[in-house]
Amino acid sequence: MSKGIEFYFDFGSPAAYLASTQLPRIAAAAGAELIYKPVLLGGIFQATGNVSPVTVPAKGRYMMIDLQRYAARYGVPLVFNPQFPINTLQLMRCAIGAQLSQPARFPALVEALYHAMFGQGRNLGDPAVLGPILTEAGFDAAAIVAGGTDPVVKDRLKQETEAAVKRGLFGVPAMFGDGAMFFGQDRLDFVREALGRL
Amino acid sequence: MSKGIEFYFDFGSPAAYLASTQLPRIAAAAGAELIYKPVLLGGIFQATGNVSPVTVPAKGRYMMIDLQRYAARYGVPLVFNPQFPINTLQLMRCAIGAQLSQPARFPALVEALYHAMFGQGRNLGDPAVLGPILTEAGFDAAAIVAGGTDPVVKDRLKQETEAAVKRGLFGVPAMFGDGAMFFGQDRLDFVREALGRL
Repeated sequence: MSKGIEFYFDFGSPAAYLASTQLPRIAAAAGAELIYKPVLLGGIFQATGNVSPVTVPAKGRYMMIDLQRYAARYGVPLVFNPQFPINTLQLMRCAIGAQLSQPARFPALVEALYHAMFGQGRNLGDPAVLGPILTEAGFDAAAIVAGGTDPVVKDRLKQETEAAVKRGLFGVPAMFGDGAMFFGQDRLDFVREALGRL
Repeated sequence: MSKGIEFYFDFGSPAAYLASTQLPRIAAAAGAELIYKPVLLGGIFQATGNVSPVTVPAKGRYMMIDLQRYAARYGVPLVFNPQFPINTLQLMRCAIGAQLSQPARFPALVEALYHAMFGQGRNLGDPAVLGPILTEAGFDAAAIVAGGTDPVVKDRLKQETEAAVKRGLFGVPAMFGDGAMFFGQDRLDFVREALGRL
């Protein structure tokens, strides 16, 4: 396919989860490839000076209501994970490793992990929880967890995160299409318009 | 009218400007009253610990692009005021005074001042600029500027801002309708839906 939409995400972001539930359909409708870009949100925050909205209590409370409104609009479940905040470093490394080793199955992996995290509220920061989720979804859990410890994979996540910051990211989800960046699960209509122009 | 939508704003917010260009039509279409709520954004930030998006440079750069996209969608001009940041304390006091003394003409005043600030990029923080803008728009400039110095008016702005924080505001624009808060000029579709339910 000649046109694509890049989707920057971290499994720790409920907004990126919401975007992940909509983007496959948006890309397919536009005949565009959905290009998954796993990055470390904590690294982006550190590099840009940005912080999570929940650091401002009033904003954090509103954000939960706002995301539930969108979940209802999209018709998808949204459980605020009681385990939060979860350090997603190992998880994002596993994602990078899985994307490199089995790119064709990566969209299914993203869907399974996001569903477990925000559709069911399971603690993906705990390897004892992550393993069975991967197995249930039909993946080789041991291989994916081991893949996350590969120095090449670790370095790749670092590089991808640094490149994202250079590109202008200050959080996730962020989408690139038609040469432009769109930030937030609430900008999917602009993504749709950008794909329509290609 | 029995149903209303409350619109919290400060003249320093370009996002609130964009909302101000759309809300009168949204309220009218729903047969709802648009209730203007002038507040001091700086006071809300101070009380909640929130900060302007421009404090994170990457976020500030994106925000300008994002707001221009919405301005294009709405078909309204948007000039990033070269005078920024403007201290809006005097301006918001004048707004409170004008709202108290001539409530029926207040929507026209809001429109004129927002247009000067973000449609034309004029420096409303400078009394020498503000005066002629008020006169051009058909208001008694001297009376409005004098009104902003009234202790009752000053106290009212403080009270309104504190009450807004108690209500959950962490920034502007914020709208209340059907008992719910909606934050941001990008949530006007939810405002429309809330008015539809009333």
